[in-house]
Amino acid sequence: MDKTNPGNFFEDFRLGFEIRHATPRTVTQGDIALYGALYGSRFALASSAEFAAACGLAPQPVDDLLVFHLVFGKSVPDISVNAVANLGYAEGRFGAPVHAGDTLIATSKVIGLKENANRQTGIVYVRTRGFNQQGETVLDFIRWVMVRKRDPHSEPPPAEVPETAPFVPAQNLLLPMGISFAHYDPVLSGSPHLWEDYRPGERIDHVDGMTIEEAEHMLATRLYQNTAKVHFNQHTEAGGRFGRRLVYGGHIISLARALSFNGLGNAVKIAAINGGRHVAPCFAGDTIYAWSRIEEAWDIPGRPDLGALRIKTFAAKDHACGDFPGDTDAHPQLVLEFDYTVLMPRRF
Amino acid sequence: MDKTNPGNFFEDFRLGFEIRHATPRTVTQGDIALYGALYGSRFALASSAEFAAACGLAPQPVDDLLVFHLVFGKSVPDISVNAVANLGYAEGRFGAPVHAGDTLIATSKVIGLKENANRQTGIVYVRTRGFNQQGETVLDFIRWVMVRKRDPHSEPPPAEVPETAPFVPAQNLLLPMGISFAHYDPVLSGSPHLWEDYRPGERIDHVDGMTIEEAEHMLATRLYQNTAKVHFNQHTEAGGRFGRRLVYGGHIISLARALSFNGLGNAVKIAAINGGRHVAPCFAGDTIYAWSRIEEAWDIPGRPDLGALRIKTFAAKDHACGDFPGDTDAHPQLVLEFDYTVLMPRRF
Amino acid sequence: MDKTNPGNFFEDFRLGFEIRHATPRTVTQGDIALYGALYGSRFALASSAEFAAACGLAPQPVDDLLVFHLVFGKSVPDISVNAVANLGYAEGRFGAPVHAGDTLIATSKVIGLKENANRQTGIVYVRTRGFNQQGETVLDFIRWVMVRKRDPHSEPPPAEVPETAPFVPAQNLLLPMGISFAHYDPVLSGSPHLWEDYRPGERIDHVDGMTIEEAEHMLATRLYQNTAKVHFNQHTEAGGRFGRRLVYGGHIISLARALSFNGLGNAVKIAAINGGRHVAPCFAGDTIYAWSRIEEAWDIPGRPDLGALRIKTFAAKDHACGDFPGDTDAHPQLVLEFDYTVLMPRRF
Repeated sequence: MDKTNPGNFFEDFRLGFEIRHATPRTVTQGDIALYGALYGSRFALASSAEFAAACGLAPQPVDDLLVFHLVFGKSVPDISVNAVANLGYAEGRFGAPVHAGDTLIATSKVIGLKENANRQTGIVYVRTRGFNQQGETVLDFIRWVMVRKRDPHSEPPPAEVPETAPFVPAQNLLLPMGISFAHYDPVLSGSPHLWEDYRPGERIDHVDGMTIEEAEHMLATRLYQNTAKVHFNQHTEAGGRFGRRLVYGGHIISLARALSFNGLGNAVKIAAINGGRHVAPCFAGDTIYAWSRIEEAWDIPGRPDLGALRIKTFAAKDHACGDFPGDTDAHPQLVLEFDYTVLMPRRF
Repeated sequence: MDKTNPGNFFEDFRLGFEIRHATPRTVTQGDIALYGALYGSRFALASSAEFAAACGLAPQPVDDLLVFHLVFGKSVPDISVNAVANLGYAEGRFGAPVHAGDTLIATSKVIGLKENANRQTGIVYVRTRGFNQQGETVLDFIRWVMVRKRDPHSEPPPAEVPETAPFVPAQNLLLPMGISFAHYDPVLSGSPHLWEDYRPGERIDHVDGMTIEEAEHMLATRLYQNTAKVHFNQHTEAGGRFGRRLVYGGHIISLARALSFNGLGNAVKIAAINGGRHVAPCFAGDTIYAWSRIEEAWDIPGRPDLGALRIKTFAAKDHACGDFPGDTDAHPQLVLEFDYTVLMPRRF
Repeated sequence: MDKTNPGNFFEDFRLGFEIRHATPRTVTQGDIALYGALYGSRFALASSAEFAAACGLAPQPVDDLLVFHLVFGKSVPDISVNAVANLGYAEGRFGAPVHAGDTLIATSKVIGLKENANRQTGIVYVRTRGFNQQGETVLDFIRWVMVRKRDPHSEPPPAEVPETAPFVPAQNLLLPMGISFAHYDPVLSGSPHLWEDYRPGERIDHVDGMTIEEAEHMLATRLYQNTAKVHFNQHTEAGGRFGRRLVYGGHIISLARALSFNGLGNAVKIAAINGGRHVAPCFAGDTIYAWSRIEEAWDIPGRPDLGALRIKTFAAKDHACGDFPGDTDAHPQLVLEFDYTVLMPRRF
């Protein structure tokens, strides 16, 4: 009996199947420190328990993207160990805040399947949910990946492609219980720019760049217990597609988010992940830059203290973003488009 | 008066001497996160406080090998700072589980001494014990190292070589108080294979490989407060035996153990370290693979919920382990043989 | 409206201005672990909660230099983002101990301004204070940096250069509430040398060397939320002054301090930072060595259990320090002079 897990191939997925993922994971204060050291994030809510408490959030929630990576990581052994590419995300929505001490588990439901024309691969659509130890949903999102078939000649299932919303509408966002920006201190947070100061169409160059080291992206990816082989094994990758270990796409999302502090310092809470596309692969030695475009600004009814912004953050490698690469057309250095919604304090 | 510590030479050890090692070390939740990021371990017991509690272990014990490295590290300044080689381990047995918040100290007793024929070095055998702040033994083990003599002409002590057991017998294993796998969830743990599914002689290729970076092994070795110079100083090592910094052997043990999850996912608790041999040195850039052979499967009387497996895990560098290198004869890429005993849930 | 922060130029500083710095930061047990892994420090007080409690310090204080880096880091976006060089420190004094769970904020007051002769830059002197969530001062220090002018033709303010003390006098040192070395255990601490054993003028070679990796200094600098660009962006630095990322000077201070354990193992508590000079830049690949000279030994009136030592620790790169580089004249490999005061147990 073979004891090692070969992962699922396209043929192994059935529409409607629900998979309970392995490896429950207790989030600790160690994760907070390590996540900070990996990205240098300075958003005040995830940096300071006192600041969080002043925003009605005690105990302090951990960084939203740390939650995303942990939940995503759980799904990898079942969903994407045999994936060729991580194609997209949609309808990501954060629920109950996650605190040090919480234990996360995850499930995925297969919501779409479509064989590719070459019959070598197929696209698998799943809705992945992360839960805390009380069974509360902390995050759910749709992602779709291109997965190898075990046998190109096997019969495909009937094609089923789910409709996904282009973004999570404002009325569906979940506000963490108790959150209030009525006493928000924009000096402490590091930015004077509040919700009213951003206009749809506005573009912000985040200026700074961050170079990636092998040790860093591997530490991060292991922290998330993400087991995708391409990130870790130079002995194999030397003979692979790129000759090098591939950086986990989520690492680029977190780098871009940390860089975006310079210009979006009060975007302290991510409420939704509307979509994302890893436009090109990244490798150790690449320097990541980012810029953002404000897509929409939404009132939250009954909330004079906060509003929502839908933002698209673009990351490029080895290319400073003062020219807003990817804004109007494809750009050879573009590596990421990430569409998300944040909560931001208003003038009160 | 010279203030720096030259470490002990072979002549400094006396049979029966007991050494209290320095630097008490409080284990924190930060250690859990960092250990996770360094190896990507996914054994559920050390990953999840909830899973541990469901196994009767609350608060959650930290990874057994983290305990080993911390206790080992304490012994380095007194035992092996002037060592040429770390030759072997025996009779390692884990006792009281270690939790975040516990403070570890260690002692070593000299149990054997034997000058080598060349009179340049001698072998020192010690039994090292780690204790928590309540004085409970958390781990004890024998190791022997080859240590430089201060003076080749000095008179050696009478040779005394201790007999060491080939392995810790089942009846001597210590079960953590309260441990029960009666409600063990093999979906959450990530492997359907329980104790009954493993047979002595069975060989398991753990498939995946992990490449080592300088920053990673140095972070790990410093985390354990292991001060052996060869791991840290490229300026000196450039002119040394290998021209490069040597990776701490324990780093390879932890990498092999993390890789072994793929095939031994329910080997959640190490109860004993029966032996170990660092067959060849490792360096940054090496990719570590591992495979395991089941040596013995033991019933634990009165415990229908769990059994013990004695396992030998082999690690090789830059060589995938599908051909089980080292199984029947020496293999040039083999770097580690590690013989240990785990507790595993049974069908209940 | 430009949303990104260009940082302050020389013209933006006014004598007497007080700046509240951004990004409150909660210190966690994760910081303790990560700081340990970055430097391998073995001073018992910051390593063990039990040892700290036996010294009257419960809960356990975190490493003093971690506090320094965190407070320093907060000041960077306002003070030194446009700095050409970090010129010096003076009058640094530690106050209330910092524990895991504390949240740090910082302010800086401009206490001196002086345009340089070339009119391109000016020197800004600030007194920076770090506070915990109760408003207690945890550290205050003076530093001065050379900052670019926005416009060489702009009128400079009247020159004002503050007088700084050459060191913090013994009677101004702050002892943490409750501290007592009456029951100090020098076996556990790892050094038999107490306060009485050190004599002004004594020189100690700390022997060991530590090689720096890019991933390590970047992890450290991000952990401190220090945003100075030169540390992170190889894409820009490739065309810069050195062609490489510059290591944060504070990283060298912490490396030298960790190395100094070998010879100063009972210098468990830093009470003051009297001065410091980053003599030359450091880069990944450099191996740091250190040696120390005892400058002064002070009685603390009414304290038979402890005394103070003023120490100057020198760090050199790629040069073992047995010849005490920098002792009597300039040395090409010298990178750091760091003058500080420690508390040390006395024979009781």
